Order: sequence, then structure tokens, then C-alpha cells
Amino acid sequence: MKALQYRSPGAAPEVVTVPDPEPGPGQVLLKVTAAGVCHSDIAVMSWPAEQIPFTLPLTLGHEGVGTVAALGAGATGFAIGDPVAVYGPWGCGSCAKCAEGRENYCLRAAELGIRPPGLGAPGAIAEYLLVDSARHLVPLGDLDAVKTVPLTDAGLTPYHAIKRSLPKLLPGSTAVVIGTGGLGHVAVQLLRAMTAARVVALDVSEEKLALARAVGAHETVLSDASAAGAVRELTGGLGAEVVLDFVGAPPTATAAGAMVAVEGDVTIVGLGGGTLPVGFGALPYEATVTAPYWGTRAELIEVLDLARAGAVDVHVETYGMDEAPLAYERLHEGRVDGRAVVLPHG
Amino acid sequence: MKALQYRSPGAAPEVVTVPDPEPGPGQVLLKVTAAGVCHSDIAVMSWPAEQIPFTLPLTLGHEGVGTVAALGAGATGFAIGDPVAVYGPWGCGSCAKCAEGRENYCLRAAELGIRPPGLGAPGAIAEYLLVDSARHLVPLGDLDAVKTVPLTDAGLTPYHAIKRSLPKLLPGSTAVVIGTGGLGHVAVQLLRAMTAARVVALDVSEEKLALARAVGAHETVLSDASAAGAVRELTGGLGAEVVLDFVGAPPTATAAGAMVAVEGDVTIVGLGGGTLPVGFGALPYEATVTAPYWGTRAELIEVLDLARAGAVDVHVETYGMDEAPLAYERLHEGRVDGRAVVLPHG
Amino acid sequence: MKALQYRSPGAAPEVVTVPDPEPGPGQVLLKVTAAGVCHSDIAVMSWPAEQIPFTLPLTLGHEGVGTVAALGAGATGFAIGDPVAVYGPWGCGSCAKCAEGRENYCLRAAELGIRPPGLGAPGAIAEYLLVDSARHLVPLGDLDAVKTVPLTDAGLTPYHAIKRSLPKLLPGSTAVVIGTGGLGHVAVQLLRAMTAARVVALDVSEEKLALARAVGAHETVLSDASAAGAVRELTGGLGAEVVLDFVGAPPTATAAGAMVAVEGDVTIVGLGGGTLPVGFGALPYEATVTAPYWGTRAELIEVLDLARAGAVDVHVETYGMDEAPLAYERLHEGRVDGRAVVLPHG
Amino acid sequence: MKALQYRSPGAAPEVVTVPDPEPGPGQVLLKVTAAGVCHSDIAVMSWPAEQIPFTLPLTLGHEGVGTVAALGAGATGFAIGDPVAVYGPWGCGSCAKCAEGRENYCLRAAELGIRPPGLGAPGAIAEYLLVDSARHLVPLGDLDAVKTVPLTDAGLTPYHAIKRSLPKLLPGSTAVVIGTGGLGHVAVQLLRAMTAARVVALDVSEEKLALARAVGAHETVLSDASAAGAVRELTGGLGAEVVLDFVGAPPTATAAGAMVAVEGDVTIVGLGGGTLPVGFGALPYEATVTAPYWGTRAELIEVLDLARAGAVDVHVETYGMDEAPLAYERLHEGRVDGRAVVLPHG
Repeated sequence: MKALQYRSPGAAPEVVTVPDPEPGPGQVLLKVTAAGVCHSDIAVMSWPAEQIPFTLPLTLGHEGVGTVAALGAGATGFAIGDPVAVYGPWGCGSCAKCAEGRENYCLRAAELGIRPPGLGAPGAIAEYLLVDSARHLVPLGDLDAVKTVPLTDAGLTPYHAIKRSLPKLLPGSTAVVIGTGGLGHVAVQLLRAMTAARVVALDVSEEKLALARAVGAHETVLSDASAAGAVRELTGGLGAEVVLDFVGAPPTATAAGAMVAVEGDVTIVGLGGGTLPVGFGALPYEATVTAPYWGTRAELIEVLDLARAGAVDVHVETYGMDEAPLAYERLHEGRVDGRAVVLPHG
Repeated sequence: MKALQYRSPGAAPEVVTVPDPEPGPGQVLLKVTAAGVCHSDIAVMSWPAEQIPFTLPLTLGHEGVGTVAALGAGATGFAIGDPVAVYGPWGCGSCAKCAEGRENYCLRAAELGIRPPGLGAPGAIAEYLLVDSARHLVPLGDLDAVKTVPLTDAGLTPYHAIKRSLPKLLPGSTAVVIGTGGLGHVAVQLLRAMTAARVVALDVSEEKLALARAVGAHETVLSDASAAGAVRELTGGLGAEVVLDFVGAPPTATAAGAMVAVEGDVTIVGLGGGTLPVGFGALPYEATVTAPYWGTRAELIEVLDLARAGAVDVHVETYGMDEAPLAYERLHEGRVDGRAVVLPHG
Repeated sequence: MKALQYRSPGAAPEVVTVPDPEPGPGQVLLKVTAAGVCHSDIAVMSWPAEQIPFTLPLTLGHEGVGTVAALGAGATGFAIGDPVAVYGPWGCGSCAKCAEGRENYCLRAAELGIRPPGLGAPGAIAEYLLVDSARHLVPLGDLDAVKTVPLTDAGLTPYHAIKRSLPKLLPGSTAVVIGTGGLGHVAVQLLRAMTAARVVALDVSEEKLALARAVGAHETVLSDASAAGAVRELTGGLGAEVVLDFVGAPPTATAAGAMVAVEGDVTIVGLGGGTLPVGFGALPYEATVTAPYWGTRAELIEVLDLARAGAVDVHVETYGMDEAPLAYERLHEGRVDGRAVVLPHG
Repeated sequence: MKALQYRSPGAAPEVVTVPDPEPGPGQVLLKVTAAGVCHSDIAVMSWPAEQIPFTLPLTLGHEGVGTVAALGAGATGFAIGDPVAVYGPWGCGSCAKCAEGRENYCLRAAELGIRPPGLGAPGAIAEYLLVDSARHLVPLGDLDAVKTVPLTDAGLTPYHAIKRSLPKLLPGSTAVVIGTGGLGHVAVQLLRAMTAARVVALDVSEEKLALARAVGAHETVLSDASAAGAVRELTGGLGAEVVLDFVGAPPTATAAGAMVAVEGDVTIVGLGGGTLPVGFGALPYEATVTAPYWGTRAELIEVLDLARAGAVDVHVETYGMDEAPLAYERLHEGRVDGRAVVLPHG
């Protein structure tokens, strides 16, 4: 079959032919309908050879949707042809975290060498994808594969970040979304669908802020040195109960701390290398700061239910299998509008 | 001043002139802008003399909004003329429940003889209302007094019921509202504003169901013997995660139990005398059933914030002070459309 | 191998020889070290033929501990010889409940014909036990198999009931345990280890109450018509924040409702056929009533951790494989002191 | 009356005679039985004149217990002679935080010039203390005044820190207490009484660690550069679910981050000027870091209930009114064993 592989450190990914995978016991083979192209792959491909935590070549793609093509011995709960989405952050399935479906925080994944598809295991940008267990599949039902595939990461990650703060997102509260790109853009929609909070979006251009308003932001603020002050002004001086930083760069992390309210939550999602120091007197009283990773199995089910209810809409542009390298090129150049999706059979 | 009083057991309420109240230390005198007329007053007035837990005559009205007319010695935090809403379920202010603002469940109210305005203390259907403490006032700001006054009970009560179940009202969940009158009608709006749950409304006429749809219900079901089956069908056999029964009569309580999901919540708000028996095998596993009362101080602040965001709209019809008895007559006859509000100075 | 089977409706269980099971893909074969004998089996064996939800003969035993004897193809995470405990309430592993390890409430178990070992699938009172998936195993480590095996049900079930109420079991609160037998006796210990609540135990004899005090109950009350009054007196009239009814008979359920506090929890665990009606005015405000079933995967891990810390001690008496029918006889006659455990190889 | 006052910037506190206070409307006058001497006073007295946020002279003492000596007009719920403890972090009583008794985070205190006794308002190290509202009093009952007075800060502050993390302090979890002095020493006892977590105490001398073990720590570790590694080793490499830093200095904050588990909580309570930076990759996934302040009204009630149950024991040494300056001297020199308490009438 054809697969898009990252083959040697620093090289561009290329489409190659690899042997067709076959499902072992408990495994499920998917015919990939759609696979998402994600910024974090570009970050991974920029690492020097000695830092790469997996062996090359690697088939890319950690967002995948497909139909069940074959069931390994003992794999149950799905039938050939069922459309499914893949839960990406695979874990051991048995530890205390996995026992609650928080496989993104599996206690034994490192020790057992378990890695997500496209980030160590062969990924979804291929004609077929081997999924290690039926428990990593969520029924797609009538959902559109192309529109849905980005939700397995770009939807699940902001959903997880928001869910931790739901008890603070009460009527009268304010939620700030810093960075309204792939994830932030979905975050605005999730906040509107799931809470009565006022949503304030921050980004660096008026163009992006217009998009944020179009998907539901109540207020928008240019993300510059005066942004924290602007958010304080919008909140009568109190600050925002929840600040979600999808950029995570030094200036946005600092701004997040400067605009959060007493007892508020700052969640740093972006990989921009910024940190926010916490200590007595450093932030408003009992503001809590954290940096989560991806989401849980149950949360992916919930995200797809939200999509089913029509509450989330992700802008996508599609590429055929042979155009997959082009998708990464364009993403790297900042020329992708919304999310790039590869259709290996399309 | 003029006040609407319930003067003797079984008699209709009448407008009388009583001495103008004066605020003692810590108390606040309000000039009443608007006062709500509530079904529960009719229930109270139907009790036989020996069951009445307070002395007559009683000035009616447990929903009140006004402006600060005078501050007793030591009463702080408000200025003359400030528009405010009254938190009705007064408590002692010091016990473990009151220490968290859950004065609706004050541990010492009975012992200390503390009762809500209009339900023991002189109520809000009068030109002036004496509020026992500034802590029972919530700033109204720019909110419309007439539209807002019903929220202090008919908004706060469903809000409290919904808030307990928020962790279950996730995407993909279903919330059923039984009875779409005063409270249920607000509940539908609150659920839509605060959650991504699918909202199913039940009532006994197509007319009422049309109204439920108009305020946001996704689905409506006639409330008859087949209702529980219809809800199960809408939920793929699983039942509803949350069932709010604003009727609370024997058949609705039974239906609530028949339509709730495993681990779901049934909350019986209505005073219709129905009960739902809970025991192993009697309901789906770990369905929890409860019957709350009114709401907390913080919740009233949140409800008014929701109104400020434009998320709740209560239909009201207004009456002057002298027409207040008529409001109760019409309410008794089921002829009030939405909520009746008395304007003592209007 | 030898197995204890319930072979025909109404008959006593008998030891028979059945073919040695072999693990299919994903399955794990255990050499059973110890298996618990539970009251609920006696209830199941009393059902008339037409109500039995599984086919006979059935190998009994839903509490099991053993060592890994063989791994089916694709079963990972355990090695031959590892000592493990079995999580009994098996589910599909994929639905929204199973995705959080709440397999006791699997949404698809009925549809897929999945049943717990000893309650439909072949059980643990046998020389070998086939476990359908490695995810249903919890490492035992150094724990004593005989002392631990009852915790998989008689520990997990009260643990689950208590965990739902932890937010109410604050300092100053009171927890009542009705019925201090197998489960209640463990519940007292769990409450003492996990909370600062005062623990009040109720049972029908002074002898049992003495045992309850020995395992940590602060107060004991004879379980008769005056019990609710006694609990109210112990709590200054307020009632208990949490009431756990391990009997679940009509009088205990009624008493539970009479002794619970405003906003308290009543949890009915016992299968005694009692129910408690909930509705406005029927119980103290916002008392919540529920009837759960068994517990979750993560909770079993936690229960074993508690045992590891020395916080739970279950009285057991042991039987060899051939004496297993005797264990049921004695249990039926009320002559088992603590928990009966069968050692198939002992 | 006599009072201990901080009279001019940098000067030592001295005992002076001031007019006897009289309660205005809503206020309560206490005859002080015992008042605590706290390190934070020493910090406050070290501030340069221009940073002092209140006017001098200031009567010291933010921990106070006394008997009701006089009730201002309208002050209710208490009778002359009632023994009470004072809740110190006074707020406005009406804002959204105060409405839930979180007056430590009052949204309007700064604006309204409200400050705690001993930290702006006249404090408890005096013969009489004026309390601004009866809601700031908690009945003492039979509790020993001297042993109890430190709990109003040195008990309430760690209690609040622990309460936020209770959902993570499950069986099998580990809680680390850094700094086992006044607050940390109480924290160890609270953790033991309220949870089944394993408690690991860190401090800089074997002497202090011996004390930590005496009050219940399961394990102790010298607080040096190898401490984080030692905690990781004790936890099988996973780290601690909860780390409470009562020192809050740069090295302890850094160590806290190095020993916390995935999804763990770091709570920085100490005022040592340290901070812990949070960002993607800086700490284990979704570790949350916060720095709270004091506690809530309901929590003080709970702390006193814990003391009533015998679960907390604070070492105290007592001083008469005239020796109060000596208490501060000795505290400054690190020569107070446990907590210093002034008995103004003793």
C-alpha cells in the first residue's frame, strides 16, 4: 500500500509503497478514509536525529478515520465496513490511568514502548492503518469523515482542556482563548456550545479575529502587550475565570497570568516553549496553572457527539495520497486554511 | 403603605394599608419595583388553619425587586437608590450551610423562627419591603425589574436543580423537562444556554409543547402513559441522563423513573405529591433521585448574570397594586400567561 | 479440572470435572488461588428456572484471585506466574461507560451477552478460570490471596458506594452503616481509613455491634424501630450526611430515609427488596437516594492499594475444592464467620 | 484596655493602653481568651514604611478566640458569654465569592478597605476584640481555647490547601508535606485524619523529621537536593499525587515540581518567594500548580470539628499580655516550640 513516511532526519516526508499490514490477535485493520495533517508533525520532523524517540522510517498521521477492513483474532465489537474514528494516545489499557480511559497519561506506555500512530507506531496517512485494539475505535455513525478527522486531535485536545474547567465556566464567567488557529478555533465553538461563559478570543491579526467572531467569540482582542489590560477592562478589573493558551509562547503565557482572575484556571496547550511561574504573590490568589496533553477515550466519544449535534465545524482542505507531501509543505508555509486532510483513497 | 395580605385562613388576599416599615440595625428597606405572584402562595393559602406555620395576617410575595430606600444602622455595601433583587430563602447566616450561602438549607432557621418574605416574614407585594440583611440583596444593574423578578424563584429553582446535574449534562446526553410552565419553561432555556445536552420537553398539550420548542427544546413529547417509552426511543433505549420533574405528581414521578438512564439523575421539583421509590432493581443502576428546594445565594447571582447575557426570557403580565388580588384569581383559574408580576408603584 | 457447578434449577451446587479451559486470542488463563463464596450466589440459585438469565450448568464464583497460567494470542501486560485479582463486572470495553472503566454499567453487555464470571460466564470456584481480557486483571503484588479475594466484591462494592459520597464525608459529618456483615464490616473500615467522618454502625444484635466497634465504628445502635431516632439524637437532630444500607430491606430503607440529613446521601446496596420513596416533602430537602451495583476498574485498584496499606482486614474461613458445597451450605445456614473462601488447589 | 501594637515602621511591638472598643450595629465585642502569634506578622513588620498597606499603630493578632462580651444592635445568633473562634479573612459578605463563604477571596475587600484583624483592622492580641459581623464567629463549644486558637490560621490554611486536592488523595496516592513547622505539622495530621494517602514529610533536620513521624508521617525525607529523587523512588518512579510546599522558597518550589506526578497537584503555601514555572514539557503532564491564601468560613467550621474529634493537636506555649513582645522576639529567633499563644487575661 501507499504510505506517507518520514524516512530520515530532516528530510521531507515522501509517499512510498510498504507491505500491506495484517491484523494480529486483538488488532483491527482500517481502510483509511481521511487522515489529518498536524503542526506537531512538523515539530517532530525538526528534531535532531539523536532526539527522535522512535525509529525511522515512520508513517505519519495521528488523526485517522476509516472503515473496518479486517478484524484480528479476538477483536470484537465492530463489523467489517463500520466507519470509525481512531483514539490516538494509546496506552497499556490496564494501569490506573488507562483503567479510567485516560490513556493519554498511561503510566506504563514508555516502559512498554507504546506510542501513538504517526508518532511512533505506523500512522494514518496511508491506505491502511493497523489499530492495536478495538478499544481505540469510536463509531463514526453518519458523521462526515473528512470534517470529523481533525476532531480526534484538534477537537479532543481543546475539549479536554475545557472540560477540566467546566465548574468555573458558570454564567457570568469569562473564558479567554489565546490563538484562534486549528485548536483555538474549535475551542471557541466548544465553549459556546457547552457553557454560558462569555468567550474572548485573542490573536495577532484582525483577519483572524474576524474568523473568531464568525465562529462565536463574543469579544476579540488583539494579542499584544496591552491584551491583558484589555481583558481586565472587559471583566471589570477581575480578570478571566479561564484562560486557554493555544500558543504557549513566552509572551502569551505571561499574558495569560496577567489576565486570569482569583481562583481562575490557566491552561497552556500550545507547544511554544513559554512558561508561567506560580508562587505566592506571583499570580492572583489560587489561580491554577497546568499544561495537559491530548484527551481521554470518553472525551473523544463526547466530542463526536458534539459534532453530531452540529456544534462544531472545522474548516478543511483536502489532498489526495500523492499530494500529501504538498500538504505538509503548505502547512509549513502557513498557507493551509483551517486543517489539511489527506484522503488516501480519494 | 399598601400591602397585599393573606388575612385569615381560606380567605382571598386583599389590599390593605399597613404602617410603613422602618429598617432596624443591619436591615435594608426597599421600595418595591416589582413582585412576583407564585403558584406556591395558592398552595399555602389552601392549608387548614392548624397547619399554617406562621401568624396571620401575612403580606404575600416571595419574589421581589426594588430600589434601596433606607439603610438600617450598620447596613453596608449598598447606596440609596441602588436597584436590587431579593434572595428569598433567608437563613441564619452563620451555620455550616449558610457559611456557603446555602441559606435555603439553613440548619437553624426553624429554631430561630426565620422565614422567607411572603412565606412568614412580610412579603414583597407591598409598596415597601424590609430585608433582614444586605447579604440577601443582589445588585440588579441594568436588568429590567419586571422581567427579572420571576427569576428570583422561577429562575433560581430550576437553575439550582440543573446545576447539581451539570457533570452529567455532557455532549451526547439528554435532559428531560417535565412540565413546561413557569419553572420548566425557564429550565429549557437554562439547559440550552449552559449545556450541550439535547433537551426534551414534556407537557400535556400541543400548545404548551409548541411554546417549549419556541424557547429551545430540541424535542417534545406529550406527557402521557407512553412518554417514558418515547424518551427511551429518542435515546436509543438508554434513557435520559437527567430528568427534571416540575410537576411532581404521581404519574410524572413514575414516568421520570421509567425514562432515566443508568447513573442518571431524577430531580423532583414540583409539589404535586408524587414520589419515586428507589431500591436495588427498582430503577436503572445508580440512578439518583432527589427533591431540592429553591437555590443558593451564589446561584441567584449566576442566574442574574445569565439574564444579563440575554439567555433567559420570562413571559410576564403586569398588575397594579390594587389589581394584585385579581392576579391571584387569574392564576388560580389557570388564566395567567407566563408569570404575573405586581407593580406596587406602577 | 474440578469446578463447582450449579447444574439444575434449585439443586445444590456440586463439584464436577470439566474440560480444562484454554485461552483464545486476548484471553488469560488463571490458576485459581482463592475464590470467594457470596450470598448473592444463593439468591441466584433460588430463582425459578424461567428467570435464570444464563444457561446451566454454571461454574460458580464471581470473586477470584490466581496466577497467570497461560496468555492467549495478543494478551499482553502480564507474565506467566503473575499473581492477579479479577475485576468481575465485565463489559464491552468500548462504550462510553467502559471507556471510563465503569464496566459495571456497560451499555452493551446485555446486547452482546457479556456476563460476569460465576454469574453467567464460567466462574472462579474451579482449578482454572478463563478471563476474557487482560484489562480485567489487577496485579496482586505481595497481597495475601485468601485475605484479598473477598475485596473484589465485598470490598469493591462498599468502596464504590462510599466514593460517590466522599465530598459529603467531611470533618464533622456522620456516616451510618446499616448491616455490619460481609460488606458493611468492610465499609466501616473503609470509612475510617478514607475519611474523618464519625461512623455509626447499625445491626440487630449486640454481638454484631461489638464486632463493628472492633473494626472501628465510633458508635453503634441497635437496628430497630428506634434506630432513626437514636441517630438523630447522636447528630443533634440533624441526621447523618451519609447512610449506607447494606441490608436494603423495607424497614432498613425506611429507617435510612428517617435518619438522613438535609442534602445527605442514602445509598441502598443490599438486595433486601426495600425501597425508599423520594419526592418533595417525603425526605429532608435534597437528600439523594440511589442503588448502585459493584464498582469500577480503577476502584478495584484503589481497594487493593488500601489493603496493601493495611487498612482493611476481612475475616475469612477457608475450604478446599471438595468442601466448596459445604461452604454454601454453611453460608445458607448463617454459620459462616466473615467470608468463606475456596482454595481450589489447597 | 491593654493591646499589643505595632506602632512605627521597623519598631518592635509594644503593649499599650488603648480605649475600650464598643460594638456598633451588627458588630460583636469579644473578651479575648487566647490569641496566636504568627510568623507572617514578623514579615509584615519588616516591610518598609511606604509598603505598609494600613495605618499605624496597628493592634496585632489575626488568630483569636474569646467569649462574647457585648452584641451591637442587630447582631444575632450568639449570646453573652458564648465561646467563639474568629474567622480572620473578612470580606464584604455580598459578592460572588463571599456569597459562598470564600471571604478570603472577596472581590470587593480592597475597594471597600476591609482588612483582617491584626492585618489592618485592630487585632486579637488585646483584652478585647471588635468583630465586624457575627458571621465571622464560629462556636467553640467545649474546645480548649489555647489549643484551638492556632487552628484559625495554622489549621485553616493547610486544611484549605488539602481540601482542593481531596479527589486526588485516594488510596494508593502519596502526599508530600514540605516543611513540618507550624502549618506543615498540622497538615500531616489533617492528611492522616481525612485521607488514606501515604504521607511523606520533608524538612531540613532529623529532629524535625522525628516530630513529623510522631504526628503521623509514614515516611520522612531530608529536604535537600536529593529529596525529589527520594520521593520518586518511594513512589516507584511515578511521583506524588499531591505536594504541599509550606516553605515556598526557590529550592522547595523547584523540588515540588520535580517530585509531582502526572496529573498531580502542587500547592505552594509558604511565602518564601519561590515560584514554579508551568508550561508544556516543564512539568509532568497536567500537573497543576497554585498558591492559595487562608481558607473559607465553612472550612473553619470543619477544622474545629476535626479538633473536636481529637484529630489535630497543636503544640503551644503560652504568654501573658505583658510578655507578648517576648513571644515575638522568641519567634523571630526561632526559639518557639510549636505555636506561641498570648492569654490577654491570663
